[in-house]
Amino acid sequence: AESSDSCLGRERIDFPVAVVLPAGGSGERMGLPIPKQFCTFLDRPLISYTIQAFERVPWIENIIVVVAAEHLDLLKSIIHKHCHKKTKLVAGGPTRHRSIFNGLQVFVENGCDSQLPRPEVVIIHDAVRPFVEEEFLLKIATAAKQNGAAGAIRPLVSTVIATTPESYLDHSLDRARYRASEMPQGFLFDTIYQAYQQCSDYDFEYGTECLHLVLQYSGINAKLIEGPSSLWKVTYKRDLFAAESIIKENLSQKACVITGVHEEAIHLGHCLEKILVAGGMKVDIISTSCGDDGSFAKNVSESYNLIHITVSTACFPEIKHTVETVRKTDLPVLGPVVLIVVHLNLSECTSFSKRMDELVTIRGFAKEAKQWNILVYGLLLNYTKDKQKWNEALESFSCVAGTLIKDRKAALTGQLFVV
Amino acid sequence: AESSDSCLGRERIDFPVAVVLPAGGSGERMGLPIPKQFCTFLDRPLISYTIQAFERVPWIENIIVVVAAEHLDLLKSIIHKHCHKKTKLVAGGPTRHRSIFNGLQVFVENGCDSQLPRPEVVIIHDAVRPFVEEEFLLKIATAAKQNGAAGAIRPLVSTVIATTPESYLDHSLDRARYRASEMPQGFLFDTIYQAYQQCSDYDFEYGTECLHLVLQYSGINAKLIEGPSSLWKVTYKRDLFAAESIIKENLSQKACVITGVHEEAIHLGHCLEKILVAGGMKVDIISTSCGDDGSFAKNVSESYNLIHITVSTACFPEIKHTVETVRKTDLPVLGPVVLIVVHLNLSECTSFSKRMDELVTIRGFAKEAKQWNILVYGLLLNYTKDKQKWNEALESFSCVAGTLIKDRKAALTGQLFVV
Ligand SMILES: [Mg+2]
Ligand SMILES: [Mg+2]
Repeated sequence: AESSDSCLGRERIDFPVAVVLPAGGSGERMGLPIPKQFCTFLDRPLISYTIQAFERVPWIENIIVVVAAEHLDLLKSIIHKHCHKKTKLVAGGPTRHRSIFNGLQVFVENGCDSQLPRPEVVIIHDAVRPFVEEEFLLKIATAAKQNGAAGAIRPLVSTVIATTPESYLDHSLDRARYRASEMPQGFLFDTIYQAYQQCSDYDFEYGTECLHLVLQYSGINAKLIEGPSSLWKVTYKRDLFAAESIIKENLSQKACVITGVHEEAIHLGHCLEKILVAGGMKVDIISTSCGDDGSFAKNVSESYNLIHITVSTACFPEIKHTVETVRKTDLPVLGPVVLIVVHLNLSECTSFSKRMDELVTIRGFAKEAKQWNILVYGLLLNYTKDKQKWNEALESFSCVAGTLIKDRKAALTGQLFVV
Repeated sequence: AESSDSCLGRERIDFPVAVVLPAGGSGERMGLPIPKQFCTFLDRPLISYTIQAFERVPWIENIIVVVAAEHLDLLKSIIHKHCHKKTKLVAGGPTRHRSIFNGLQVFVENGCDSQLPRPEVVIIHDAVRPFVEEEFLLKIATAAKQNGAAGAIRPLVSTVIATTPESYLDHSLDRARYRASEMPQGFLFDTIYQAYQQCSDYDFEYGTECLHLVLQYSGINAKLIEGPSSLWKVTYKRDLFAAESIIKENLSQKACVITGVHEEAIHLGHCLEKILVAGGMKVDIISTSCGDDGSFAKNVSESYNLIHITVSTACFPEIKHTVETVRKTDLPVLGPVVLIVVHLNLSECTSFSKRMDELVTIRGFAKEAKQWNILVYGLLLNYTKDKQKWNEALESFSCVAGTLIKDRKAALTGQLFVV
């Protein structure tokens, strides 16, 4: 769904913009066991999250991912599985500059059927910086068009020191006068392309900074734009933890409560909505109506978290309908959808065989849904007239449901939680 | 428990070493809502984890934490709650250098009853770098004794650039010739103390680098030692995610399987041990024997993860004994202990009322144990003669138990998981 930011983008960006993502590192080259861009989060590789950050931007037309030849097939399957429609692949070179140059050449080769139209501005970004936002890309693209070159900068977090060859302190730099150069960077296509055509083999072999290239060969001092901390690069093991948490947090912002037509279920839906909102979540509440698929399907397609209320096991066909509706959206290809089936137990005396039936049904149901990237959990909410106990049950619901949504754990699907 | 590293430390460190942790930042000073050192992980503030990293080191005698006056009471309660026995508090100053100087003066004031003996070497470290290891502290302390000053360095992860006043690129630095200055740093006490006595008000107000101070005022070029990436500083929101994950990972390395005396429970214990080891965990397996408290208590005191097998509800007194044993260890003051009660259901036909009894018992039990920082979960393992189904059940056990251990979630305590 397009935000007002996106509409603003299309107003201001009236020139073609493409993206080149150098991801040419192989395990061997970096001396690492696995290049970070292929580490998976919720069964989806990091590079797919970065690609999607650009797929979401309406004024970006083409995304060129540059990978080592040995990774081409892997990337093809990633692009196919996660439906990245604007993305094309190119084989990389032995260094980052060579890979970027390969990516640019896709727009320049002549007489080729698959040639893409030359963009006016090209954005260069790292495959391992997944949290880049349209608002900042707008600033970079605009500054690149006006100035020829632009780049993200961040404050230095540590004092930078110069060392002697024997590893003693020589002198320290005044932190205030320097910045860290980050990504994304943007360039007029012709400017960066010409710089690459003119630079030396030494630059290709040892250079790390595109801004330095255009300074030396095109004489352009890049415009530097302070970027948000979210532009950070996934480099170390701790960054994998941070990325996973942020990805999960992004999926946990919003929930959709689905009630059937029973009065008690609708009433409970409003209680659950209220307590989830108190916990910081955005909540929509809708009723199942198998006739009006339009708005039902629309609401379902906007949320990675569904809470479906049932009052009897006869409601299971409704749940199947919800699952079928989710499958038709584009959500599961990008991340697991959490479906919490909340069974409201209205009889104060519990029927044990009914519990076991439910447990077995949820178990089988969850096993099937998991193959479609839908994680099903059961939650048994025992109604009681005792106000205090009922409020405690609702609090408990909020804690358990909140945890299931935030952690999105496949290992706990099919379990029946009791509050 | 002391490792061979610790014994090595005491052999090599035959001089007194103290630590000063400047944590004087107040919310106002940093312009942040909450200083990161007070962010909690598993109900324990970050600064407590950093303090404990030094409490664990046998050759460190005193830890001086320097905090803003408004935080003194909070730190007193943290030190008391988490049993930090070597730690003392001092009020900080308006800047980091002033705070460090206040920390050093604790060893110098005359005629005071609470004066501490002057150390030979003092280590300075940040409250927000919790993952510092004894091995590296040894290198810093040794180099400080030999050279007068030593400091941790790390490679630069971004290109450092100089900017013009209008925010254009002026030039970029060659990344290979510089390093990031990190913590910990170490000094001969007299050297750093004298440097502070001689430095200017400008240094006190605007300086950020202790190594620079001793270079300027004591003429010593610090020895620089490459440190591990675990020395990173908790600065941004993503770092909170990373720190929490690392803390949880550290608690999830080892489990202790407790079987009763029943033959089936002992056999199951070995199955569970095997499958947990296959999942990468270290596992001890012991039998409950209320007579032999010595080895039972010792094993329990070494693990944040207990898996207690029962074959009938008559086993609950054994579980109470396990909980009592955990309470007497020093584990719960530093982190939540996970206790998974695995009920092995030997009858192929399930008794539903028995299920509900168990559920209710686990629920009440878990509620009580939570106040002692012990997280209790129930797990129902249904025995079956069908080999394939039994292996699937064991795999399921491994996934669920692994998740409960890794995530250590208070919200899911008292639930009965079925595999
Ligand atoms: Mg990269
Ligand atoms: Mg600090």
